[in-house]
Order: sequence, then C-alpha cells, then structure tokens
Amino acid sequence: MHELVGGLRREFSNKILDEMTDAACLDIDKKRIAFSTDSYVIKPVFFPGGDIGKLAVCGTVNDLSMMGARPFVLSLAFIIEEGFRISDLKRITRSIKANADRAGVKVVTGDIKVVEKHAADGIYINTSGIGVIGKDDCKVGRKAKAADAIIINGHIAEHGLAVLNARENFGFESDIRSDCANLNHIVEDCMRSVKKISVMRDLTRGGLATSLNEIALSSNVGIDVFEDRIPIREPVRRLCDALGFDPLYVANEGKFISFVSGKDVNRVKKAMGKYASVIGQVTDKHKKEVHLRTDLGTSRLVPMLEADQLPRIC
Amino acid sequence: MHELVGGLRREFSNKILDEMTDAACLDIDKKRIAFSTDSYVIKPVFFPGGDIGKLAVCGTVNDLSMMGARPFVLSLAFIIEEGFRISDLKRITRSIKANADRAGVKVVTGDIKVVEKHAADGIYINTSGIGVIGKDDCKVGRKAKAADAIIINGHIAEHGLAVLNARENFGFESDIRSDCANLNHIVEDCMRSVKKISVMRDLTRGGLATSLNEIALSSNVGIDVFEDRIPIREPVRRLCDALGFDPLYVANEGKFISFVSGKDVNRVKKAMGKYASVIGQVTDKHKKEVHLRTDLGTSRLVPMLEADQLPRIC
Repeated sequence: MHELVGGLRREFSNKILDEMTDAACLDIDKKRIAFSTDSYVIKPVFFPGGDIGKLAVCGTVNDLSMMGARPFVLSLAFIIEEGFRISDLKRITRSIKANADRAGVKVVTGDIKVVEKHAADGIYINTSGIGVIGKDDCKVGRKAKAADAIIINGHIAEHGLAVLNARENFGFESDIRSDCANLNHIVEDCMRSVKKISVMRDLTRGGLATSLNEIALSSNVGIDVFEDRIPIREPVRRLCDALGFDPLYVANEGKFISFVSGKDVNRVKKAMGKYASVIGQVTDKHKKEVHLRTDLGTSRLVPMLEADQLPRIC
Repeated sequence: MHELVGGLRREFSNKILDEMTDAACLDIDKKRIAFSTDSYVIKPVFFPGGDIGKLAVCGTVNDLSMMGARPFVLSLAFIIEEGFRISDLKRITRSIKANADRAGVKVVTGDIKVVEKHAADGIYINTSGIGVIGKDDCKVGRKAKAADAIIINGHIAEHGLAVLNARENFGFESDIRSDCANLNHIVEDCMRSVKKISVMRDLTRGGLATSLNEIALSSNVGIDVFEDRIPIREPVRRLCDALGFDPLYVANEGKFISFVSGKDVNRVKKAMGKYASVIGQVTDKHKKEVHLRTDLGTSRLVPMLEADQLPRIC
C-alpha cells in the first residue's frame, strides 16, 4: 500500500501534493484554502457509534481541520449497489445531513452512480471538502520541532475495534463505540487559544503509531511517547489483548494530536477537552524514529507498519 | 433515478445545491469558485477513444467549464478491487496525468482504498474539482431566454456507442470512438469571443435530449431543435438504428451546447470549432417542452426519459 501510494504520488508529483498532508493547501488568487478527498468503503455501514455517512462527513471535515482550515463546503458522491435498501440509504443520508449541520458545513454538489449486484458492497461514499484558511488565524504548521509537547484529545483505538467487533462477530460482549466525531470546533478552540501550533494530525488509518511515524519522518525529528500517558479505556485494552492487536495501530475517527511549544501546552490541552493528555515530546535525538517509553523505564521502537492492520475500516 | 436524486437533493436542500447545475458556484470571501464531483464506474475501463482515467479528468473539468469557470485543481480517489492489475492501474494513472496536463489542472490531493474481490468491479474513480470564476470574464448564465440560438460543437452519441460496443460484443465491426475530451480550452475561446452566454451544458448521461429538457424546465422556455442540423456520423446512425437506440439520448463526453443571443451566434459558433452547428432555437411557446422539427416539416415531442438508457456509461 505504501509503495502503491508512493508510486502514484510520484506520477502526479507537484509542490502541493508532495507535502503529503491530510489536505492540500493552495491559493486562489490571494485566498488560501484547503482541499481534501476521501472515499469511504467501511464494512459494515452501520456500527456502534456511527455509520458510513457520519464517517464520510467527519473524516473529510477533520482532514480540513488538521490544516488549520475552517471546513466550508462538501461534495457528496454515492456508488450504490443495485438492491441496496432505500431505507438504509435514507438513514445514511439523514446521518450525513445531521453531521454536516453539526460541523457547520454545506453539501453543495453531488453525484449518484448505481452499479449492478456484486459490483460494489452495498454503498461507497466519497466526500471532498473545501476549507478556508484565514489570514489572521493561528498558524497551524507542517513540521514538529525539537522540544514540542505532543497532546492527544482522548482515548485511542475505539473506532477500529468497534467496527471490527461489529463485522466479525467474535462473540465478545462489548460496549465499545466508535469515537467518530467532527473535530473542527475543538480545533478552532485550540487555534483561538495560542498563536502557533507546530503540526496537528488526526489518528485515522494506522492509528497513533502511524501518525507519529509520519510526522517524525516528514519533520526529521525523534519522538518519545510515554506509554502510561496514552489514554486507553479498559475494555479496549482487553479486547486488543484478546485479539492480538496493538492499540497504537488501531484506527480512530475522532482523535488527533497537537504539537506545541512548552509555553502553550496548558492552553492547548485545556482546549482539547477533559480527556486531553500530554503523551510525549519531540527530540532531536533518534531522528525519524518513534520510541515508546514504558512505566518500567525501558524503551522500544514503534515502527512504521507496511501493511494495513485492518481492511475497510473507513 | 430521477426520483432518487430528487429525494436526496431535498434532504440537503440549500441555495447552492438547489440550482441543480453541473457544478456548485460559491463565494469564498469575495472570490467566486465552482466546485464539482463525479464518481466514474464505466465498464469496460478501456474503450476506443479513452479510458476511465481520461474520463475522470475530462468529466469533472467539463462540469467546471460549463459554469464558466477555469478548472484549477482536482482531487483523485481510487476504489480498487483486490487483484486489479498493476499494469492497468499504471496505464490509467498515466492517462489521468496526461489529460490533466492537457487541461492545465493539477491533482493536488488523493485517496486510495482497496476492497476485496467482488466488492468492486475492477476500479472506480472519483474526481472533484475546483474552478475559478473571474470577475472580468464573460458571464455564463444559468437560464436560456426566448430567441436564443442553440449551438453544438460537433457529432453526437459517440461515447455511449463506443462504450456499449466495447462492452457487449455485439459483433458489429465499428470504428466508432468515444468523443471524450477536455472542453475547457474551447469554452475559454467562447468566453473570449462574446460578453454573455445565456447557458452552457455538456451532453453526458442522457445525451442531447436530456440536457435540452433540463434547460427547458429550469429556464421555463420552449425549445425547437432542427433534426437535419444535428451532426451525427453515418456509422453512429446505422449502429443506433440496428440497436434501436435514439442517438439524441446517447451519452457524449466531449460535446456541449451554448445558448446565445442572435448577434453573438457567429462568434460563438466559430469558437466552438469546425464541426459546430446551430441546431435550434429557444421560444416562449410550448414552455418546458423540447420539439424536434423534421426535414418533412413535421414536429414531435422529445420527452424527458425517466430511466437511464445505458448503465455504467461514465
């Protein structure tokens, strides 16, 4: 997958795409905007805590937010398998509307394609979004710098586990719900609280570990994470243990990390909500590597995984 | 389909979406942009005259152009069935790049999802696009007005037939090729040639007849079309006859119509190229109806068809 993405990126190489961020940032005349796209192929389409429609709004809204942009409008494109229930389509559509309203974005253009049986798996949704980056806003940067603190806004690994549990019928009783949520309002709170955030990243496919590795690589820094400060709920930890998953790599849909200077830590932490936690720090040692420091004082490398741990999770 | 689209539109009803145009037009601060999305599910992915990648660029570029916008950037999202050939993916990707270069647009953000066997049919592509509408440009309007002339830029029904012929193996020898092409440069020529174009529309799903009906409805006017002035190549006419298709309803991917005032006809016709033809006229009679006037002096109603004549044509 990384190779495939890399190959395709090279094909289209240009200054904007090469930044490899969640959304492209570009100027239309002198107006700076963010532009992002994602297709959603999650299975099942309904899961505890959300549905494909909610995900399609939150995912794209969050990608824009991570650039420091105010999400403004969405496009909405359905690929629907013949025979997909109209009642399910309506439920998904209402969910899209409700979550777009909550985020304060409008769906302004759309498309529907219907394909025959077995040419899709129920329904796939693409949303693309445009966000506005204000001149006077707090600047959200693209690079972490040494001594930055790393703050997370809450408990990890809930989306991936909720979806997997709903899909595979492991027989585990569980009330784990996806954390799927729009992050734009909380990001705006962060941006109001300080003048500069080095970088922000949502923790979707590949989870916290993948996001940390991507930032360590692109910023050419080392990252230390403190295991005991990473918020994980007990049922999540237990289910991960039972299934042999590392929660650091499990997808989230309502979690993000902010990298900020020491003087701004308290303000940003407060803006990130009551479950926010300072989980780590940037260092100019062990560049491009993420190290997990354990309660016992030991340390281990958190590698970039090549393969997706879980397919069709978003 | 019309009902489904109508129902979904009502769910999201807002001023921009309700305009029901090829692309949304909106203001970011005082900057006017067009925003459009389409998913491409065409079967087969390679066909005479094009491929799904070329189509995914041209389709979205053309939707933006029809709003009088200069296409600026594209997003690109793949849904790929496991086992889809890497060599085919590369061929499609190169085609996207070549056609984006030709149109002068950049792919600035993207997404790739891989789904398991039988959860898609090879490859689906979504492109969304942003175009810029200049303040000093010729204005492309949204409504036809009585006495406007209707100009088409060339021969109809070639995309639909080429795709169908490639898919169904009817056994007809045919050198019919899709007309798939970027229209943005020719549209810019039109806009440079006059101050105002009442409305422009590309003739994709549902063909010329559907586009004319949509405009007659939304502009509350009648439309007269002159059968003998509609450019159709002989092999297309013969294959349509043999298959029982009405070429007026067959999809195009490089054809569009412009509605202009009498004084501007010659200039716009010239800008629309050597195959351009004045095919009809707007009237304040028979409102919301499209009438086809034949060589024999008779006239028949060209209705809005409810069902798609051909599935997976784009």
